[in-house]
Amino acid sequence: MNSELQTLIDKITPADPGVIKRANIRQARLTKPPGSLGRLEEISVRLAGVFGTTRPAVASRSLVIAAGDHGVVAQGITAYPQDITGQMVLNFLAGGAAVTAMARSLGVDVTVVDAGVKSSLPAHPDLISLRIGPGTNDISEGPAMSREDAERCVLEGSRIGADAAGDGSGLVATGDMGIGNTTPSSAITAAITGMPPEVTTGRGTGRNANELRLKIEVVSRALDVNQPDRDDPIDVLAKVGGFEIGVLAGVMLGAASRGNAVVIDGFISGAAALIATGLAPALGDHLFAGHRSAEAGHSIVLDHLGLEPILDLDMRLGEGTGAVLAMSIIDAAAACLAEMATFDEAGVSDAEPEKTRTK
Amino acid sequence: MNSELQTLIDKITPADPGVIKRANIRQARLTKPPGSLGRLEEISVRLAGVFGTTRPAVASRSLVIAAGDHGVVAQGITAYPQDITGQMVLNFLAGGAAVTAMARSLGVDVTVVDAGVKSSLPAHPDLISLRIGPGTNDISEGPAMSREDAERCVLEGSRIGADAAGDGSGLVATGDMGIGNTTPSSAITAAITGMPPEVTTGRGTGRNANELRLKIEVVSRALDVNQPDRDDPIDVLAKVGGFEIGVLAGVMLGAASRGNAVVIDGFISGAAALIATGLAPALGDHLFAGHRSAEAGHSIVLDHLGLEPILDLDMRLGEGTGAVLAMSIIDAAAACLAEMATFDEAGVSDAEPEKTRTK
Repeated sequence: MNSELQTLIDKITPADPGVIKRANIRQARLTKPPGSLGRLEEISVRLAGVFGTTRPAVASRSLVIAAGDHGVVAQGITAYPQDITGQMVLNFLAGGAAVTAMARSLGVDVTVVDAGVKSSLPAHPDLISLRIGPGTNDISEGPAMSREDAERCVLEGSRIGADAAGDGSGLVATGDMGIGNTTPSSAITAAITGMPPEVTTGRGTGRNANELRLKIEVVSRALDVNQPDRDDPIDVLAKVGGFEIGVLAGVMLGAASRGNAVVIDGFISGAAALIATGLAPALGDHLFAGHRSAEAGHSIVLDHLGLEPILDLDMRLGEGTGAVLAMSIIDAAAACLAEMATFDEAGVSDAEPEKTRTK
Repeated sequence: MNSELQTLIDKITPADPGVIKRANIRQARLTKPPGSLGRLEEISVRLAGVFGTTRPAVASRSLVIAAGDHGVVAQGITAYPQDITGQMVLNFLAGGAAVTAMARSLGVDVTVVDAGVKSSLPAHPDLISLRIGPGTNDISEGPAMSREDAERCVLEGSRIGADAAGDGSGLVATGDMGIGNTTPSSAITAAITGMPPEVTTGRGTGRNANELRLKIEVVSRALDVNQPDRDDPIDVLAKVGGFEIGVLAGVMLGAASRGNAVVIDGFISGAAALIATGLAPALGDHLFAGHRSAEAGHSIVLDHLGLEPILDLDMRLGEGTGAVLAMSIIDAAAACLAEMATFDEAGVSDAEPEKTRTK
């Protein structure tokens, strides 16, 4: 293992079990019937464990969108021309995309990263230009990138994630853009979870059963040709991954290394999380699943990560849209745990089981 | 029909079908694969119809919480002492409740209404004191309130709703507090939807099967004794309703009468919406269901209203918590429709089905 990468991984600590215990005790004394806040209770307690306080307050909300292109589009696995990846990066920078409209509405800072877009993009003050390469190689014919480039994606991403998050107690969302990137995500999911390509592969933006059949064939070939080693996440990333996927894995590790929580988006962010938690299992405590994507393989990823999604709105856009939307729910859950009065503090009577059974 | 009430009802107009058509056309030209924003697309288009513009912008977010007590608690249908209703009103005013913590986190203005709490509450600058009565009468023995009081609840509520919403293009959430108020809500739901008490009645904050059985008996008795007329929503409210339920029905009508959208919360808000849409069917276009409550009867209410909930987080607290949480999702959906670039504007290529099938 690259020593810089090992240093990063060593910085990621699991949630504090003592804080989680105390947060659960506090949660049970808040002025509401026990359990009546449903999923928000568990979300708030997990966040307490990550932030290391029973009164978690979200200090910042940021989104990192990483964009990259994929040589595998040569196999005809998508209906969209590859030029769109770069065009959408410009759309993010101009604020005209779905996720940038949402981010404005929800008060989320946005960082855009060119991880490796094929078309060359003009310099822009809000664009971080990594350009690990002009798109990956075709994974159906050989590795997507070299092992060195895979490590570089993760390390560069970790710096971006750490910067985006600030000094801890922040929420960092991950978003992606890359025409064709459900294909490497399906391959990563198959490689790491051991599930067959038939179930890890969904339609993406494709239109019919023929396209889906082709995509499954392409994912199968990518796995056959490359034989990624599931116990070596960098190998999986290098062989069947993508530049933006590696950068997002790094963003997660970098954000978590500074005591932040990470809100993952849909299938592509999920594939990145499989790589990142493979490298640093303690990262799992820091992850929140923003939503359940309509993309088929996403549920497999969430099961593997042991995450229950917060939203289920039939979305399948990527860009970080599902993650950004979930941030205000996480924030509100934290506010309840941090700011609600307990029964004692508010002078509110608790349930009195005996007294009320007068009939 | 009371003439003031009729004037209110006449002011509520359905969504503009021309705007909805144009909003759908615009939605289809935004820079994303068609349908990829899932439920957000339909939410944004419905909001466009209510606000009368294809570029809906949410001008304000407010919550009205109405509190009231219920004589039917004498039947032992709840584990909590009645004093809690008034104590929780004070907790709202002090900002220590779940919904007030959330409202701060989400930037939502809160109005608290004493619709008819049993214990007398000290005057407070942020409390609207209607006090239609010191709690309703026991619905298992006769009507909850007089027809005049039922009309008064709705009319007073409509003024509060109109004030909270402002001059249109606002989101108004409805929240409730009232120990025992799932029982009248079950009775209203049974009366208006025609479903039997066995399915409209859930556990509420109750603890076991015996309590649920008792509650079903009490709801059945309330319907037998009072024989509410389902075609006369004021009669249903008077006979088996509650003060806060009537006020919330009024809040919905008042907010909608000024061109606002209403985000309903869980089961009690849902029962109020059954009354309000019974009075003014055009109100239905203005309603958004914040969440699916864990309370059993809520799904029946949503089916009757034809609403699909936005969130499903296993919550069952009331207070408006589910409605307030959904507001930022609705706001973000509106921002996408209003602010995203179209393919033409952004210079982004649309899918080119023929060109990409080169293999």
